[in-house]
Amino acid sequence: MTMPSDLDISRSTTLKPLEEIAGELGIGAHLLEPYGRHVAKIPLEALSELPAEPRAKYVVVTAITPTPLGEGKTTTTVGLGQALRHLGQRSAIAIRQPSMGPTFGIKGGAAGGGYSQVVPMESLNLHLTGDMHAVTAAHNLLAAVVDNHLHKGNKLGIDPHRVTWRRVLDVNDRDLRNVITGLGTRADGQPRQSGFDITAASEVMAVLALSTSLHDMRARLGRIVVGYTRSGSPVTAEELGVAGAMTVIMREAIKPNLMQTTENTPVLVHAGPFGNIAHGNSSIVADQIATRAADIVVTEAGFGADMGAERFFNIKCRNSGLAPDAAVLVATVRALKAHSGRYKVVAGKPLPERLLAENPEDVLAGAANLRKQIENIRLHGVSPVVAINAFPTDHPSEHEAIREFAEAEGARVAVSNHFGEGGKGALDLAEAVLEAAKEPRLFRPLYPDEMDLRTKIETVATQVYGAAGVSFQPAAARALADYEACGFGRLPVCIAKTHLSLSSDPALVGAPTGWTLPVREVRASAGAGFVYPICGDMRTMPGLGSSPAAEHIDIDAHGQVVGLS
Amino acid sequence: MTMPSDLDISRSTTLKPLEEIAGELGIGAHLLEPYGRHVAKIPLEALSELPAEPRAKYVVVTAITPTPLGEGKTTTTVGLGQALRHLGQRSAIAIRQPSMGPTFGIKGGAAGGGYSQVVPMESLNLHLTGDMHAVTAAHNLLAAVVDNHLHKGNKLGIDPHRVTWRRVLDVNDRDLRNVITGLGTRADGQPRQSGFDITAASEVMAVLALSTSLHDMRARLGRIVVGYTRSGSPVTAEELGVAGAMTVIMREAIKPNLMQTTENTPVLVHAGPFGNIAHGNSSIVADQIATRAADIVVTEAGFGADMGAERFFNIKCRNSGLAPDAAVLVATVRALKAHSGRYKVVAGKPLPERLLAENPEDVLAGAANLRKQIENIRLHGVSPVVAINAFPTDHPSEHEAIREFAEAEGARVAVSNHFGEGGKGALDLAEAVLEAAKEPRLFRPLYPDEMDLRTKIETVATQVYGAAGVSFQPAAARALADYEACGFGRLPVCIAKTHLSLSSDPALVGAPTGWTLPVREVRASAGAGFVYPICGDMRTMPGLGSSPAAEHIDIDAHGQVVGLS
Repeated sequence: MTMPSDLDISRSTTLKPLEEIAGELGIGAHLLEPYGRHVAKIPLEALSELPAEPRAKYVVVTAITPTPLGEGKTTTTVGLGQALRHLGQRSAIAIRQPSMGPTFGIKGGAAGGGYSQVVPMESLNLHLTGDMHAVTAAHNLLAAVVDNHLHKGNKLGIDPHRVTWRRVLDVNDRDLRNVITGLGTRADGQPRQSGFDITAASEVMAVLALSTSLHDMRARLGRIVVGYTRSGSPVTAEELGVAGAMTVIMREAIKPNLMQTTENTPVLVHAGPFGNIAHGNSSIVADQIATRAADIVVTEAGFGADMGAERFFNIKCRNSGLAPDAAVLVATVRALKAHSGRYKVVAGKPLPERLLAENPEDVLAGAANLRKQIENIRLHGVSPVVAINAFPTDHPSEHEAIREFAEAEGARVAVSNHFGEGGKGALDLAEAVLEAAKEPRLFRPLYPDEMDLRTKIETVATQVYGAAGVSFQPAAARALADYEACGFGRLPVCIAKTHLSLSSDPALVGAPTGWTLPVREVRASAGAGFVYPICGDMRTMPGLGSSPAAEHIDIDAHGQVVGLS
Repeated sequence: MTMPSDLDISRSTTLKPLEEIAGELGIGAHLLEPYGRHVAKIPLEALSELPAEPRAKYVVVTAITPTPLGEGKTTTTVGLGQALRHLGQRSAIAIRQPSMGPTFGIKGGAAGGGYSQVVPMESLNLHLTGDMHAVTAAHNLLAAVVDNHLHKGNKLGIDPHRVTWRRVLDVNDRDLRNVITGLGTRADGQPRQSGFDITAASEVMAVLALSTSLHDMRARLGRIVVGYTRSGSPVTAEELGVAGAMTVIMREAIKPNLMQTTENTPVLVHAGPFGNIAHGNSSIVADQIATRAADIVVTEAGFGADMGAERFFNIKCRNSGLAPDAAVLVATVRALKAHSGRYKVVAGKPLPERLLAENPEDVLAGAANLRKQIENIRLHGVSPVVAINAFPTDHPSEHEAIREFAEAEGARVAVSNHFGEGGKGALDLAEAVLEAAKEPRLFRPLYPDEMDLRTKIETVATQVYGAAGVSFQPAAARALADYEACGFGRLPVCIAKTHLSLSSDPALVGAPTGWTLPVREVRASAGAGFVYPICGDMRTMPGLGSSPAAEHIDIDAHGQVVGLS
């Protein structure tokens, strides 16, 4: 019953040469740019050698509203991709790059797990090919140029109190959340209150994920708004003359990274936008390449279906023009039991013992969340497949309860044991997904571009979250009016709320009704291309715990990494 | 007379496969880890397949005291390495990685120039293989752990007012020099005054350059002092439990980067410690590999011979055990004229027209600097070779004046036109270097480990800088006593003073005498392994100018980089 550690499984995998991995997708070795032995970048020129149109079935993996522990969406994505190979499909997987900060914090890495991992997990969880670092560098160059502009006479008339562009670092560092910069002498700038976010939360990262080409990225970087003039006009990176340099810093980062799973299935790892305030999906260019190269592409969306999948449908697909054929909804016994409201699951603590006892009734008591998330997928015209991510502590009666419930809701269902068995543990799931993807493609975004921002927010809140309505704080209402005036009214909305509830209150489990979504303020990522209303406290810079993972990570006598998980 | 731009020359170079470049040095293709098509990392395992002892002649390139424009030390290093190939020598070149901050600031890139460049210059001047980013990440993880320790109860009893560890970013950003962190609520840390340095100034970078193995790097990172307890004891990264994680972040960065010159000569690019407060030399591990693989290794030391070469001899060679066979002293007509005191050379402005007129007398009026720097090389038992780096505006009579002067001082001399002609422009220089390197090896460091810190400082100041004496501020004297008590007394000293004069006053040209070196304070890089007295204002975070290079850097319609220089 005891399994080797993720790091041990990763290290014992026999890796195939990436030329072979790419070759299976019809991507020639001349198109690979190796970074170390086990990662390669795929330049966007690959698109001109692949079929001109997407040919793959396109499957998004999402989840019911998760517990703070997460419900294994990445492992399911990897396991499903592997299982599809067992069924003779040329599958490809697309995931986000993990953020290095949390790797050394409380969360650990994010490469999947068990026998459904992306390998080598050390490469994935650490620098990979430096894309995150490029985002940090491009973001902070822009920040330096903003303050330099203020220092050198402020020709554009930027209001120092309305600079919205902060700085970023890929580290969990709470002390950087709120800082005063520019102290010292006259030669050291001008004092100003500001702060740092984690790199994944950078708009540059959101731009990277939503760009459809190098020149599109150049244009989006130019549209980034760094603040406002005294008369209230937005000031952009283009006006500051730095969008070109930012693009040059990002010119390697825009190439997706090819890796493989523990079963040598191709994986494109690219971009890692922060789900809290951005769309939380991997890159469009990676999916563009994958959908032209593979038979079927499995891509992952962050958080639950109300969050990541909604943004996948309404932001990512809107930008890419790609249409999904099926959506996998990862569900676990533990999360459904938690949605009953009878248990409290806390990150970093063991599960309550009672929760582990056989109890299909508790599972059903939490199933309203599953019902609503199935509906959320259907709202977009996509076929849902419920993947029951099996844990050793589960009971067959509990799986059966989920199956019956989901089937009654008209969804396909499969139990999956990809963590313990790899692809062969996910064969049922793969078959269900192939069937679902055969249905006619009826994908539709939830709202049209021309709908006003306020109505877009109300549409997502009522139809997807199940809110009774939306309340806008005066500042939020003003911001929406300003954004419409600035020409941002056609952008989609990316609602920043907790991912731990369908509602904006993380304590409300199941599928809460009769509540109002409180929009405190609204911000714009005009470069990336969305407006984000903020509903609740959104942390954009994590902290370290009392015993951070960093304390357990080291090299051994042979120079091998130990303690990474 | 008009030459193509550096970027055009770089791009028109026919690059050889790196396997071939490495093969010429006896380094097998199985040892290369490619990063993109034109850069490869060489893992330290290469050392076990190379001869056990260094076999190469070892030549350091340094300079007379430079003008703010620099005198072309990197181009000379590259040109000499190329010329040695013309003479049938298997040469290898070792240089530092340029810092990205200044690439977008006033300075531009640092890949050599003209027909003596390291290519592709875009790779070198931008991310290369991410070593700088790894330094940033490791450094800032330690900073986050320090503040987290204060936040979580401060078991080690760190005095918040005596935290010396700042944060770093590879960007020119004056507003980050002095900041207050930890503002906000109780959950956001504790307010504390601190600041950011540029990444090259990180002690982690100095550690990278001075480490002799992965485990040695682990030990040095552990010895980094982040601050002091209330009772005055140093607190280390090891005590904070983070040295292992920092090593894991740096485990790829310790592998030197193989590139090539415009003439396909092998170049190892590795580490870029900040000459202002650190030793300013490329890495020991790169030189270890190069000296076992090549016939002759040309390595560069930052700034003039009083600074970079003194630290090369007394810090780098002391750590590596490698002994140099010759030192090239780069001299230019313009710098010698500036040392006459009759002209003022300002960065970013054209040279005074009068300076460009034929005037061998002015050259001789500044030659005292050349004499002292020749002596500084001799002080360490090494044969000096003066390289006159030729400019199109020079006059033959001026070159002749330098030659006669230097020969009278007993140095070998050659005029070099590597910028305009590549290796064949540096053949005379290469011949002079080969002759100098044939002399018996008499290298000796200037002082023994056991000399006390104060006397070490006085020895460098009086013997190398030509000072009459040293004055220690009370705080500096106290710090020296504290460091001796902490056990840092055996470390070498790395004196932080201006590089624009042999003295500590940048306005004093030539070879000033009768002055006193004022030591304002003393700091320790206990991890890297040196103590650094501070004499004058040391900027560790540059700013951007009124028209930063970033404004001119962009991509063109084909996605190619333009405006990088």
